[in-house]
Amino acid sequence: MILRQSQLFTKTTKENPKDEVSTNARLLMRAGFVSKVMAGVYSYLPLGLRVMEKIKTIVREEMNSLGAQEILMPALHPKENYEKTKRWDAIDVLFKIDGANNKELALGSTHEEIVTPLVQQYVKSYKDLPLAVYQIQDKFRNEARAKSGLLRGREFSMKDLYSFHKTAEDFEEFYKKAAQAYHRVFERCGMNAKYTAADGGVFSKFSHEFQVVTPHGEDIVFSCGNCDLHTNKEIVSADETCETCSEPLESTKAIEVGNIFPLKTKFSSAFDFTYTDADGKEQDILMGCYGIGISRVMGAIVEVHADEQGMVWPAAVAPADVHVVPVGDSEAVMKKANEIAITLSDHGKDVLFDDRDERPGAKFADSDLIGIPVRIVVSERLLEQNAVEVKERTAAEPTIVSEAEFYSQWGM
Amino acid sequence: MILRQSQLFTKTTKENPKDEVSTNARLLMRAGFVSKVMAGVYSYLPLGLRVMEKIKTIVREEMNSLGAQEILMPALHPKENYEKTKRWDAIDVLFKIDGANNKELALGSTHEEIVTPLVQQYVKSYKDLPLAVYQIQDKFRNEARAKSGLLRGREFSMKDLYSFHKTAEDFEEFYKKAAQAYHRVFERCGMNAKYTAADGGVFSKFSHEFQVVTPHGEDIVFSCGNCDLHTNKEIVSADETCETCSEPLESTKAIEVGNIFPLKTKFSSAFDFTYTDADGKEQDILMGCYGIGISRVMGAIVEVHADEQGMVWPAAVAPADVHVVPVGDSEAVMKKANEIAITLSDHGKDVLFDDRDERPGAKFADSDLIGIPVRIVVSERLLEQNAVEVKERTAAEPTIVSEAEFYSQWGM
Repeated sequence: MILRQSQLFTKTTKENPKDEVSTNARLLMRAGFVSKVMAGVYSYLPLGLRVMEKIKTIVREEMNSLGAQEILMPALHPKENYEKTKRWDAIDVLFKIDGANNKELALGSTHEEIVTPLVQQYVKSYKDLPLAVYQIQDKFRNEARAKSGLLRGREFSMKDLYSFHKTAEDFEEFYKKAAQAYHRVFERCGMNAKYTAADGGVFSKFSHEFQVVTPHGEDIVFSCGNCDLHTNKEIVSADETCETCSEPLESTKAIEVGNIFPLKTKFSSAFDFTYTDADGKEQDILMGCYGIGISRVMGAIVEVHADEQGMVWPAAVAPADVHVVPVGDSEAVMKKANEIAITLSDHGKDVLFDDRDERPGAKFADSDLIGIPVRIVVSERLLEQNAVEVKERTAAEPTIVSEAEFYSQWGM
Repeated sequence: MILRQSQLFTKTTKENPKDEVSTNARLLMRAGFVSKVMAGVYSYLPLGLRVMEKIKTIVREEMNSLGAQEILMPALHPKENYEKTKRWDAIDVLFKIDGANNKELALGSTHEEIVTPLVQQYVKSYKDLPLAVYQIQDKFRNEARAKSGLLRGREFSMKDLYSFHKTAEDFEEFYKKAAQAYHRVFERCGMNAKYTAADGGVFSKFSHEFQVVTPHGEDIVFSCGNCDLHTNKEIVSADETCETCSEPLESTKAIEVGNIFPLKTKFSSAFDFTYTDADGKEQDILMGCYGIGISRVMGAIVEVHADEQGMVWPAAVAPADVHVVPVGDSEAVMKKANEIAITLSDHGKDVLFDDRDERPGAKFADSDLIGIPVRIVVSERLLEQNAVEVKERTAAEPTIVSEAEFYSQWGM
């Protein structure tokens, strides 16, 4: 795929947007990846949408590897379902709507109230369990303050997985597998997420968060440097020592990019959702829920990897694999750059091609801001040497390689 | 890809759901493609989600072929934008919400109020035009009555495209190309959509709808049998004759699956969105909008193609290409069926594999209900002949072919 910058309707800007303090919002808006509609609500533009789709593909692959089945539930939820779980007034960020025919509705901030009766329609017997379903869908939260760009949205993309089990052992086994899948997701997205014990709320003694360390995080995590145990501030205080090895704990700021949560029978009981065991007896169903904020992951990647010049996308989630940048007015240069872009594309690479009539300085500044992993420069001087300049976004200096060598490096 | 029915959490049912009168809702729910949350609001289950994704892929390909750029705008819209266009009270189906900090919000029923200021951020000069952007996103409409299954939803998936032009000629040229792309979308989805003149509302003298003829349609279209001119009931009366060839008009019921609409300067003016021409003068921008109801297309396909036994999916949008159905208890039969499923999958076919322990009658009834284009039956009797039974969903009778012949028919 070749994306020609001359055709892209977005433009970059050097000015930081007003009313945005977070690095992710500033850089994503400056580079034309997203556009702000209001606090906590963004439009995704072509380059941003590509990143989002790549994150979704990674998440989907890892959820499928757990044997989970993809579904898609709606955002509009009827009040009745929340009356059963007693959460209509308990969820403080729930958007509420007066619908036609005096019907009260909510916009889903999470989907336990929908998924539980949905799965209940089909699951009757012990033979139908265990079971896991997930969706990638937009959530709504009526946040009073939304000032962290994609990190805390009023409307945001989320993957939510729900699992249903006969026994605590079966639940725990799945919970561990889900945690491993989560580690793979964040690793593939270029982030090292710490598995962090957190409060289980009213449902459970514990839950776990996946926390990415960054100075711009909203959360505080206490870590033991000795045994890799991480605990959220909400359940431990700074002067405590590690419960496993008694070492002092160090606090770091972090962004929560995912969480996994035992729900026990909280929701299955509310909907009288049970199964019949092999002896014909009714038994309780245990549930778990597992969330990843897709748009939050996108924001977190920017926070973790940005430098002074702009964004630095890990290869797996970059809007393109290669940025081909011809400089100068020469027709021969443009022709060679076009040829390279086509060759890379023919070999399955996604290419961002800066075919704009812009000065080299402006092109390089935009290239650094957009943050594609590898930049290939073609110029008249390089053309005379049958060479191209290759610069990895994270490298300090470019290298000049012959065209043949460049193609061979890319396995062509 | 092989989807094993024993792993699918949904189940089919013979009973028609209560409170559903439409063919599409009854069949889609009975087959476990969708589940109803409330009137006009459905969850999409694994088989239904596959159909939806295939429709989206077709729509995306055709929109990209127009040079349109994909974006994703939010569902939450600020009231200010509707005050500029004077549509806050004019759109009768607009869901309105009281957000945090006394901010009034709407749920998008369409996106002119968001896309116009978004594109305005980037388009300044004649060099930036023409331009088209589109999204595939969920719309919300506070319908008092929603009783046609996926045909009239309170929450539904829609593709909306918006185009921006310097001149009326340029707009008209794009409008014609968009109409051609729409015809290709519906043809690929297995439907013959009639290009139907309709009212242009307050914006324009005319607009056009794509109407699929079916006895269950909510719209009435008058057609001239002589010259292929179609007109919506809203702008013509039954006793009129064709304006082109004076033949009498015939009325048919139809489902509107898409529409295209000249917006002229209605929205660009409301946002003071102009461009600077080559002489440095400010000029008006002309807009068009172009919608396809993705979930409505899914419902319409069911309405158009269903028979007494169930759904009949056109190949391009079917949840699988082949339904492999072993019958009987024999291990050898299951082994052969599994081998065929794997071979088909290895050759890029999507296979639905009925590996359940069910009686043949139940399997065949489910197969007809689910409506995969081709069914392959493996049985002990057939195995003895090294043969399989092949039945196209639309054929009256199956044919028995040798295994070798079957593979050769599928180019393997």
